Amino acid sequence: MAIMKHAEKKAGTLIEALPYIQEFYGKTIVVKYGGNAMINEDLKHKVMEDISLLKYVGIRPVIVHGGGPDITHFLKKVGKQSDFVSGLRVTDEETVEIAEMVLDGKVNSDIVNMLNCRGVRAVGLSGKDAGLIKARKKMATVYDEDGHTETVDIGYVGQVESVDTRILQDLLDNGYIPVVAPIGVGEDGESYNINADYVAAEIAGALHAEKLLLLTDIEGVYKDFNDKDSFISSLTVEEAKGYIKDGTISGGMIPKIEACLKSIECGTNKVHIIDGRQPHSIILELLTNSGIGTQVVK
Amino acid sequence: MAIMKHAEKKAGTLIEALPYIQEFYGKTIVVKYGGNAMINEDLKHKVMEDISLLKYVGIRPVIVHGGGPDITHFLKKVGKQSDFVSGLRVTDEETVEIAEMVLDGKVNSDIVNMLNCRGVRAVGLSGKDAGLIKARKKMATVYDEDGHTETVDIGYVGQVESVDTRILQDLLDNGYIPVVAPIGVGEDGESYNINADYVAAEIAGALHAEKLLLLTDIEGVYKDFNDKDSFISSLTVEEAKGYIKDGTISGGMIPKIEACLKSIECGTNKVHIIDGRQPHSIILELLTNSGIGTQVVK
Amino acid sequence: MAIMKHAEKKAGTLIEALPYIQEFYGKTIVVKYGGNAMINEDLKHKVMEDISLLKYVGIRPVIVHGGGPDITHFLKKVGKQSDFVSGLRVTDEETVEIAEMVLDGKVNSDIVNMLNCRGVRAVGLSGKDAGLIKARKKMATVYDEDGHTETVDIGYVGQVESVDTRILQDLLDNGYIPVVAPIGVGEDGESYNINADYVAAEIAGALHAEKLLLLTDIEGVYKDFNDKDSFISSLTVEEAKGYIKDGTISGGMIPKIEACLKSIECGTNKVHIIDGRQPHSIILELLTNSGIGTQVVK
Amino acid sequence: MAIMKHAEKKAGTLIEALPYIQEFYGKTIVVKYGGNAMINEDLKHKVMEDISLLKYVGIRPVIVHGGGPDITHFLKKVGKQSDFVSGLRVTDEETVEIAEMVLDGKVNSDIVNMLNCRGVRAVGLSGKDAGLIKARKKMATVYDEDGHTETVDIGYVGQVESVDTRILQDLLDNGYIPVVAPIGVGEDGESYNINADYVAAEIAGALHAEKLLLLTDIEGVYKDFNDKDSFISSLTVEEAKGYIKDGTISGGMIPKIEACLKSIECGTNKVHIIDGRQPHSIILELLTNSGIGTQVVK
Amino acid sequence: MAIMKHAEKKAGTLIEALPYIQEFYGKTIVVKYGGNAMINEDLKHKVMEDISLLKYVGIRPVIVHGGGPDITHFLKKVGKQSDFVSGLRVTDEETVEIAEMVLDGKVNSDIVNMLNCRGVRAVGLSGKDAGLIKARKKMATVYDEDGHTETVDIGYVGQVESVDTRILQDLLDNGYIPVVAPIGVGEDGESYNINADYVAAEIAGALHAEKLLLLTDIEGVYKDFNDKDSFISSLTVEEAKGYIKDGTISGGMIPKIEACLKSIECGTNKVHIIDGRQPHSIILELLTNSGIGTQVVK
Amino acid sequence: MAIMKHAEKKAGTLIEALPYIQEFYGKTIVVKYGGNAMINEDLKHKVMEDISLLKYVGIRPVIVHGGGPDITHFLKKVGKQSDFVSGLRVTDEETVEIAEMVLDGKVNSDIVNMLNCRGVRAVGLSGKDAGLIKARKKMATVYDEDGHTETVDIGYVGQVESVDTRILQDLLDNGYIPVVAPIGVGEDGESYNINADYVAAEIAGALHAEKLLLLTDIEGVYKDFNDKDSFISSLTVEEAKGYIKDGTISGGMIPKIEACLKSIECGTNKVHIIDGRQPHSIILELLTNSGIGTQVVK
Repeated sequence: MAIMKHAEKKAGTLIEALPYIQEFYGKTIVVKYGGNAMINEDLKHKVMEDISLLKYVGIRPVIVHGGGPDITHFLKKVGKQSDFVSGLRVTDEETVEIAEMVLDGKVNSDIVNMLNCRGVRAVGLSGKDAGLIKARKKMATVYDEDGHTETVDIGYVGQVESVDTRILQDLLDNGYIPVVAPIGVGEDGESYNINADYVAAEIAGALHAEKLLLLTDIEGVYKDFNDKDSFISSLTVEEAKGYIKDGTISGGMIPKIEACLKSIECGTNKVHIIDGRQPHSIILELLTNSGIGTQVVK
Repeated sequence: MAIMKHAEKKAGTLIEALPYIQEFYGKTIVVKYGGNAMINEDLKHKVMEDISLLKYVGIRPVIVHGGGPDITHFLKKVGKQSDFVSGLRVTDEETVEIAEMVLDGKVNSDIVNMLNCRGVRAVGLSGKDAGLIKARKKMATVYDEDGHTETVDIGYVGQVESVDTRILQDLLDNGYIPVVAPIGVGEDGESYNINADYVAAEIAGALHAEKLLLLTDIEGVYKDFNDKDSFISSLTVEEAKGYIKDGTISGGMIPKIEACLKSIECGTNKVHIIDGRQPHSIILELLTNSGIGTQVVK
Repeated sequence: MAIMKHAEKKAGTLIEALPYIQEFYGKTIVVKYGGNAMINEDLKHKVMEDISLLKYVGIRPVIVHGGGPDITHFLKKVGKQSDFVSGLRVTDEETVEIAEMVLDGKVNSDIVNMLNCRGVRAVGLSGKDAGLIKARKKMATVYDEDGHTETVDIGYVGQVESVDTRILQDLLDNGYIPVVAPIGVGEDGESYNINADYVAAEIAGALHAEKLLLLTDIEGVYKDFNDKDSFISSLTVEEAKGYIKDGTISGGMIPKIEACLKSIECGTNKVHIIDGRQPHSIILELLTNSGIGTQVVK
Repeated sequence: MAIMKHAEKKAGTLIEALPYIQEFYGKTIVVKYGGNAMINEDLKHKVMEDISLLKYVGIRPVIVHGGGPDITHFLKKVGKQSDFVSGLRVTDEETVEIAEMVLDGKVNSDIVNMLNCRGVRAVGLSGKDAGLIKARKKMATVYDEDGHTETVDIGYVGQVESVDTRILQDLLDNGYIPVVAPIGVGEDGESYNINADYVAAEIAGALHAEKLLLLTDIEGVYKDFNDKDSFISSLTVEEAKGYIKDGTISGGMIPKIEACLKSIECGTNKVHIIDGRQPHSIILELLTNSGIGTQVVK
Repeated sequence: MAIMKHAEKKAGTLIEALPYIQEFYGKTIVVKYGGNAMINEDLKHKVMEDISLLKYVGIRPVIVHGGGPDITHFLKKVGKQSDFVSGLRVTDEETVEIAEMVLDGKVNSDIVNMLNCRGVRAVGLSGKDAGLIKARKKMATVYDEDGHTETVDIGYVGQVESVDTRILQDLLDNGYIPVVAPIGVGEDGESYNINADYVAAEIAGALHAEKLLLLTDIEGVYKDFNDKDSFISSLTVEEAKGYIKDGTISGGMIPKIEACLKSIECGTNKVHIIDGRQPHSIILELLTNSGIGTQVVK
Repeated sequence: MAIMKHAEKKAGTLIEALPYIQEFYGKTIVVKYGGNAMINEDLKHKVMEDISLLKYVGIRPVIVHGGGPDITHFLKKVGKQSDFVSGLRVTDEETVEIAEMVLDGKVNSDIVNMLNCRGVRAVGLSGKDAGLIKARKKMATVYDEDGHTETVDIGYVGQVESVDTRILQDLLDNGYIPVVAPIGVGEDGESYNINADYVAAEIAGALHAEKLLLLTDIEGVYKDFNDKDSFISSLTVEEAKGYIKDGTISGGMIPKIEACLKSIECGTNKVHIIDGRQPHSIILELLTNSGIGTQVVK
């Protein structure tokens, strides 16, 4: 009898997923994969399971990943030290070459491999493949002694110039899961290392994705970070801009929120900042009514 | 915390469904819908939820339904009494006309309607539509005083002569759920009322369905009906034939098992006899590892 | 020699059809089937022959049928009496249930069956199938003693709210002839019995049909019904509205003409009121220069 | 009343055509057009009407035409005289050049033009277009004084080597009516004039046509030409061979019958020899039960 | 070593073609074939090679040809003399019949044949096929003694009324090379002989061709015909009109330039007047940076 | 005049390419890219030009590349020394990780980038993408003192187990150029470094490629390497096996020839060993009659 009750609960969970499956069927969901969920082995596998499930219920997932820690690890290995300006790594030609090797030839390959082991068919891409991401140099902004801002050239750190979605569309239409390393290509064929949040934001926008999920190491946005009751579960673009202005959103959260706003502006329907430390955060957010994190909408 | 545990359990159930979704993706599953699950209001809705879920995870369901109680109810209403021979209703022209009206114009319409309310697109069919089911008269077998068998004409009770699956394939390919009333059409255009188990069996066979699910009012097949431990969870065609011969399978179970065997012989991959009184029996059987009932395989 | 003359005459008739076949090739023609042509056995068969011929010369016919007499007959059978308000049957839950059974499970099935016997592939639909016809309650209008109008709730008598033509298009594209029973479905899944003229008018409009043919029991519209010379073979929408206003068109003709106007307004190219009592009236109208009846055009 | 009777008769003829339209729908019918029907202005137009009608009722007609009299006329015009050997024109380079100009640039163009005036879209082809007909030299057979046979080279008279049906299929699939002049092309690009009966026979065979219709100036095949009662309406291949052997079929009828046999052997389903002098002979044969002429079947 | 140098030069030429192949891939190029290149046997073959190459590198060529000399030759053969008015042949019914035979049945066939021998699949068309070119009578303009202009009826000389490109598109989409004879068809089905430059101009316009190449017997346009240094390699529509006005362009060059202007106005992207006496002028112009002739652009 | 002669020569080269373009149109050509042609900057660009040209003339190229020198360079950079057994690098986990990063994240990306700069759309793949190359461990063969052979485990050096061509086919069908790094994936998801000649051989075989071109640093196969006159321009599989047996082919040439044989056995039509040091060797071999190198055929 208890077994039957348990079975019914299971069935209930599946039925609970029904309206979400229905809602997202055939829709494109871009997942920015990064942070703890890329380091913790158990979380890693759960992310892969989640993405496979999305694929099997008819959703078209696209993965964009980061890889900072691995880059740092390899630079160290070759005895290369990095300077940082305003939190951005000064990236000379050797550094960007190693960054590309690590992101495209290791991190990306590993994700593709883990997904393929679950019976889906993932294909790794960098921004160079079929001209996916055109980039240009991004300058760092620093403050001099007098508090004036100044822009500094920090090498091959880039920002997205444009996204050519054809290779993504073709792969999605043929049933593959594209996995994208955040490397862009400049006008003269040079490589740029780009912040993965922004790459995900621009790709989601260009694909007119139904959702962009940003996996982070926080629970979401708080009005007051010390007051757990001040959690914000939904934000409009307008509100978000206000919170940045009035300082409610500050520090490292600002670029993340700016990526969200950029994405919506480019064409993404909704953006979700979710806690990648929560096991199965992706399907909890997408396929159950236990939705988590902070959502940003138009 | 407890909420998070609960959420993880949900996620676990969804992940558990993954290999099944993967296995049945794009496959055709025929469901014979009948018995208690057609009478109890709560069970009815759960069956509709189950079938909608199948559709949303990429399965192609086909429903074949019975409707005996409703026919009896309406015959009574028009003051028509029925004789039965060997358990089969003697079916004169007026009776078959009413049976068809009830099955096609009421039972079938209700199922279609309940499914459509869940966002899928169901289309009702009888065997007359696009020549789906060609039928011929089925004679009843009786025993005379001396124990000799004799066949008796009981009117418009039919058996399946052939199935033209084109309308089913066209509807499935266009994303609809076909719902079939067990009415066949004879050589001269006359209607026949056919046992729904057999109709489902033949349709599943003709479609080379991945599975035929027979919703019944029993838990499955037992070696000894009084010994709950003698439950048979899997039967080969060979074994089933043996059990019928040696009397292990007897009474009303015989025609049901014979329909299973017929279906496998015609081209169905597997048949499952499941307990329609168990809520969500369909998705428990198909999408969880809490599979229930008795399976018949080649 | 006489044989040869006769043969040539035949050939002449076929050649006469040529420009019409050319004109209607691949076009959708909606036929409202009702009245005498549904009762007289000989006329019935001729209508079925006509529709089959249309299909074979490349036209896409859609049939919408009525069924009042059959409903009355069955209500009587179950001992149910009907009240009428302003000519509309007061339709309680039991009445609409029986109406649906009769229309969908008997009248519709019979038409489908007769067509299929001629080698075409017809499929029966009601407004419930794939959400074809959404409906809402239609109130009856009565006059009180003082001549004021008042609206009266007469139960499950409906009017068309919207038509979802996808199932019709899919069936037509796959070569089937859809046959539609005039049942609509309300917001809460309840059934409504709708006047077949209006259902045909709205379906023709929604399909942007080339023509709507209304089979009636009159020859067409007369300026003066007693003067056979006052026959009107063509009417513009403007003129029709004028004739209703000045009383030239009156009585039972008004709702029929209003259905015509509605249909043209919704997207139908032309509407023809033809005499269903004339054998082969459909192909005479469509494929010969012996066109009959009254046509309503923009 | 008389008008209505007349209308009904018309309708009857159209209905009579129904099973034939049904049978030939989407099928390819090759018509060998020649003889009187190409000379008499009235007959010409009726042939064009017939072929247009076939197209409009869903048949895929292909026309192969002759043109002997026009060639003779033009040769005379340029003062060129022809010798004949065993009934075949001795065809030097200048002769075949003129034959091609007449067949392709005049006769073919005229037929195409007349068809297009009837609203269909005909396209003229010769065997050179897209390599439709590969040909090789055909020798004439003569008897010397001692009754021995001898083969004589008579120039650019050809026989069909092979047929490449791709251009025909592409045109038919795009809804055109191909009209073929009986010119073949040899290995070195040289032109050959080929007997149109044989070209039609080979094309019908290569297309696996449903029927080949040979328009001739006779009523069909007689056992005894002087006894009108000895008309043969149907012949098997076996019988035809027998009749040639025993002399029942003789003279100019032999090559015609041999073309029929060849066509069936290559893949044509049925061949009909019909009297082109009978107005509308094509549709009488194909679309009415007043079938005429002699049919040759496997 | 010398061999290797030679090989590299070859490779260089192929690589030089790369950007042009890229630019014209999938584009439609109309070639007006006429003049010396149609008479000189060696040039003829080189034109055929050029057109085949275009086809093989993914370009969609359409050929429109003239044939004046052949017409004259045949008219002489049948003893028919022609009068000319303002350079246009007075064309009675017999003349146009012969012109059509020659153009369609000889010149066109020969071109088709030569192309097919190179492994492509060409199909000959005249303006009659599938109603490709509708034409109307063109009057000749003459000056009377007082210098007043007057229009004179010279018979079946036509101008393009409209072009129905469907048959061209269908053939191009199926991989064929259409070869068009400059015959148009009038309202009553009568044939017109049309100047091939104009036919090519209108067809290129109607197809929105990437380029129209006019093969002529001159090197291009000169400001001063006697000064080889005054060659004009590119002309805008504006400039061309100016040059006609100020007399820089005069005589037989005027109608050619007017055809160019007409073509651009109708939708052609660019027109090139090239010297057909230069071997391989077509591919030199299209696929190398040794472009020749005078180009006319918007 | 000289210019015109030069232009004609160019045209001649293009025309010379015609039969080859025709022959290879739509065919798949696999190019193993390695050796000097990957090091010399000028040669690199010429290879990219060649491959782009192939694509533009309708060929479907697939690139498989090596990258030994780059791997060695990076291993040195991280202070990792390699042992070699029988010429194969002993490859521990760290080594294969770096090899994969270099091959997939640097060499592959660079090739993709250079191709995309020429207007084609290349996509980089490793054997992990969509499960393209399944691999298993390859043991090294060594000789002990007594001349007996022994197999030695040298780590993550692999051989091809199977090729799943779906991702290649999908990319080719959508117009991309796949560029493949020679990394395979084992049963447990581990990476293997595989000899690129063998990867190219197996991929060509699995695709049933028209040709496999192996770019090497030799001119081809000689009977006697010191006698330039003993060059072998064509070899059958049979002959090749004989030459290996009798020692004509020896040393480093043996595995290369074995890869050729393997490829033909798997389904490749022809294999060509060509000299990558010759500029434009690919198009010289494929598109001119200055074919170079040694061809191996069935």
